[in-house]
Amino acid sequence: MAKIVFLGTSGSTPTKSRNLPSVALEYEGSIYLFDCGEGTQRQIFKYSLNISKVEAIFISHIHGDHIIGIAGLVRTLALNRRQQPLYIFVPKGYESAASQLLSFDKAIIGFEIHIKPISSGTIYKNEDFEVRALRLVHSVPAFGFVFKEKDRVRFIKEKAAAAGLKGSMYSELLKNGHITVNGKKVALKDVTYVEPGLKVAYITDTRPVQSIAIAARGADLLIHEATFAASEAGLAKERKHSTSEEAALIAKKAKVKKLVLMHISARYRSTAKILKEAKAIFDNTYIAKDGMAITLERGS
Amino acid sequence: MAKIVFLGTSGSTPTKSRNLPSVALEYEGSIYLFDCGEGTQRQIFKYSLNISKVEAIFISHIHGDHIIGIAGLVRTLALNRRQQPLYIFVPKGYESAASQLLSFDKAIIGFEIHIKPISSGTIYKNEDFEVRALRLVHSVPAFGFVFKEKDRVRFIKEKAAAAGLKGSMYSELLKNGHITVNGKKVALKDVTYVEPGLKVAYITDTRPVQSIAIAARGADLLIHEATFAASEAGLAKERKHSTSEEAALIAKKAKVKKLVLMHISARYRSTAKILKEAKAIFDNTYIAKDGMAITLERGS
Repeated sequence: MAKIVFLGTSGSTPTKSRNLPSVALEYEGSIYLFDCGEGTQRQIFKYSLNISKVEAIFISHIHGDHIIGIAGLVRTLALNRRQQPLYIFVPKGYESAASQLLSFDKAIIGFEIHIKPISSGTIYKNEDFEVRALRLVHSVPAFGFVFKEKDRVRFIKEKAAAAGLKGSMYSELLKNGHITVNGKKVALKDVTYVEPGLKVAYITDTRPVQSIAIAARGADLLIHEATFAASEAGLAKERKHSTSEEAALIAKKAKVKKLVLMHISARYRSTAKILKEAKAIFDNTYIAKDGMAITLERGS
Repeated sequence: MAKIVFLGTSGSTPTKSRNLPSVALEYEGSIYLFDCGEGTQRQIFKYSLNISKVEAIFISHIHGDHIIGIAGLVRTLALNRRQQPLYIFVPKGYESAASQLLSFDKAIIGFEIHIKPISSGTIYKNEDFEVRALRLVHSVPAFGFVFKEKDRVRFIKEKAAAAGLKGSMYSELLKNGHITVNGKKVALKDVTYVEPGLKVAYITDTRPVQSIAIAARGADLLIHEATFAASEAGLAKERKHSTSEEAALIAKKAKVKKLVLMHISARYRSTAKILKEAKAIFDNTYIAKDGMAITLERGS
């Protein structure tokens, strides 16, 4: 199970109702942050997440609105006497920029902060899931992130019973891929199916390039920026952002289950138009709000 | 007239209801910020102040919770195409720390930022008021600030008429200090009184030293930190902060008109005890809340 909490859903500048970008993904008791705009630590408190559970932070790009929040967050963790290390991922080449932001006042931080470079491919992995980075198209090097839980092999009870499987035969079959039961060969694929792991894609800031649709293919949830309404497609192109319609087209091509739009420009007081434009292309679209939470379960 | 808006009233870490420290003083259409904790720009929007009117920022000390907000604030001003310079005052010797915080990502800021060193004495002055800095006692170099509007010489109408003053005599008397009317010498002090300018003191983070009472003497408003309740006087001493009672004693000694306590530790869910303790010593005490506004007028 993964719980996604939208901590900040604005773009560039905060508004009365939207803080700067950050999305928390809670998984097995740990929290992973995608971007960390100014004020993220307060949003964590506001939406009752446990700040000490933040394990890693993935920064899409080095623009201030996506990263300034790490400075205050690490100081609060230090005040809370955190011991375990914190991992902060930033686009390769910007490690010293992140380090400069963290260390401007030479504050004493009593735990290790590992600033890790992001290149395309798998950047974080544990026994349950991995996070892959994909290069986006923005005014500075930017990356999208795909959280992918491991697929699991599940036995089809009826077929396994019919094949005569019992006891340690299950683990042997899993290990070797085949087994002989009562003189009859049973292949793993005959009695199992693959239950795909959860997949969540976080995509901001970028032009709507095709590689996003490929990376997000079949995702349970695609979080995509929609800085502009369709009527400002020229501005979106110029400033290397996406419109409502462009984000929805990516969702449609990627055949994702659900699309949530965020990083909405502060210029829009109402998001009704942006939602309508996107829904016309991809119906299962929502506009993120600060504090919105989505719980995803395998196979649901 | 000066309007004070409490933008953030917490200490060290934000809470659900309190942002990190910042107090806005609006005077003659311009805004002066005292401290600028993370999230200050959003508080400015939230409480409907005009961010483009921020003229100068006075940072009490370089601890992250008091300064991190400048990084996002200047970026938003840049997005808004600000032209006029911004003045940021930081304790002398910490100019490069502030500069490092502002420039970590080499963002293009299209207006001048003047980072000015703070030493004791007058650090900012225009035709209407001055801001004086006084050295506080904290774990790092810290300064309190006193906003002092110019005193004005006002004519006592009845006395001026009785002395036979008219026309250009008023300006001549103001210029020379005395004038002869119908053969009789009139001194300025005979027909005028001094209307004192508004005085507001902003004092955080510090032990309650006597120089504060001297600097804040007779202030219309003393904003003083009260990180701890009286029962944690030992902790206040150790961490170089003040308690409710210590802040109230300063207000009493300084004979200020009103005391507002802020920088309350996040450990206190209720501030009732802190208020009660302070009021027992200095009755006209209030606890600051985010968004609280106080309007001060000369002679009121």
